[in-house]
Amino acid sequence: MEYPSKLIEAAVAEISRLPGIGKKTALRLALHLLREREESTFALTESLNNLRSKIRYCNQCHNLSDHDVCGICVSHRRERSLICVVEDTRDVMAIENTGQYTGLYHVLGGVISPMNGVGPSDIKIESLVSRLTGNAETREVILALSPTMEGDTTAFYINKRIKDLSVKVTVIARGVPVGGDLEYADEVTLGRSITSRTLFS
Amino acid sequence: MEYPSKLIEAAVAEISRLPGIGKKTALRLALHLLREREESTFALTESLNNLRSKIRYCNQCHNLSDHDVCGICVSHRRERSLICVVEDTRDVMAIENTGQYTGLYHVLGGVISPMNGVGPSDIKIESLVSRLTGNAETREVILALSPTMEGDTTAFYINKRIKDLSVKVTVIARGVPVGGDLEYADEVTLGRSITSRTLFS
Repeated sequence: MEYPSKLIEAAVAEISRLPGIGKKTALRLALHLLREREESTFALTESLNNLRSKIRYCNQCHNLSDHDVCGICVSHRRERSLICVVEDTRDVMAIENTGQYTGLYHVLGGVISPMNGVGPSDIKIESLVSRLTGNAETREVILALSPTMEGDTTAFYINKRIKDLSVKVTVIARGVPVGGDLEYADEVTLGRSITSRTLFS
Repeated sequence: MEYPSKLIEAAVAEISRLPGIGKKTALRLALHLLREREESTFALTESLNNLRSKIRYCNQCHNLSDHDVCGICVSHRRERSLICVVEDTRDVMAIENTGQYTGLYHVLGGVISPMNGVGPSDIKIESLVSRLTGNAETREVILALSPTMEGDTTAFYINKRIKDLSVKVTVIARGVPVGGDLEYADEVTLGRSITSRTLFS
């Protein structure tokens, strides 16, 4: 595609580097910015620059934070005996939204994925191990990773690393989604929901 | 939704102002930038700032341009007797890609849309009228606007403004899309393709 201006070509090239955004959408977004007032573009770019250069991570759980230790890690209302291991911030937000969990978190910042060149040392697994070592407070580690190949590999690896510490390791339940029609559940999920059945209460 | 950091909250708010991008996608994009190297965020924001502050428009056709007059308006290879009126740069690029048009353009920068508060004076219609007035070069104006209510209104208005000038006004053909199955064409399009039928050649 030939662009009428080098400036728009450069902007489209940069915007379309973002995941899930192709050249056509990038052009649409760039033209949108050109139609809006200058200030809205500058507000956008400033917020992105600020985000990238000033963001901090919690020393303990590695979640995004405005301080050295995040609001959850510092809170006295949370159950300090539970640590829920998740892939990223979005999972923390999703679990917080359920209102069903009151423990702490450990944000790995990714999952083991040899295809994408992500090994165990690229994510915060060692930090989890040292967080658990010599810490009598934690009684249970809940692995809340996505039920994908990468998530399962990561869960398997973490369990291998921490199973000798005196801490219970659990996994979030897999089964048919609440509100979903049974006939639409895939075979693996349905199969898993039968083998992992629980007592009717 | 409660964000773990004010910085990410601000970035999500700004990103989700863009058309077609919701809060969830915005968060995904922001977290993507945090995972990438700092330089890629800065390259993105710099290209957007440059685009917004340095972009120029062609004096004649109002298309985006790196110079005062764009490459098409300045070219000796283009048929100077034809002016194709379009809504924005994307339309110019789409028509250029067909390789079927060798005339000039006039980019309105929008269409008349009372719903969005866009009137005739907000787009480059007066500029088209003065471009045609006292210019013996132009023989035909082709209206290539989207076949929507706004596009039709704009075409109607432009025709009213320029019909007394000694210039032929044409509209791009509407009919069944090439390669499309007839049974899937909507009634209005199919009806139009019958009333606007042309001689078999």
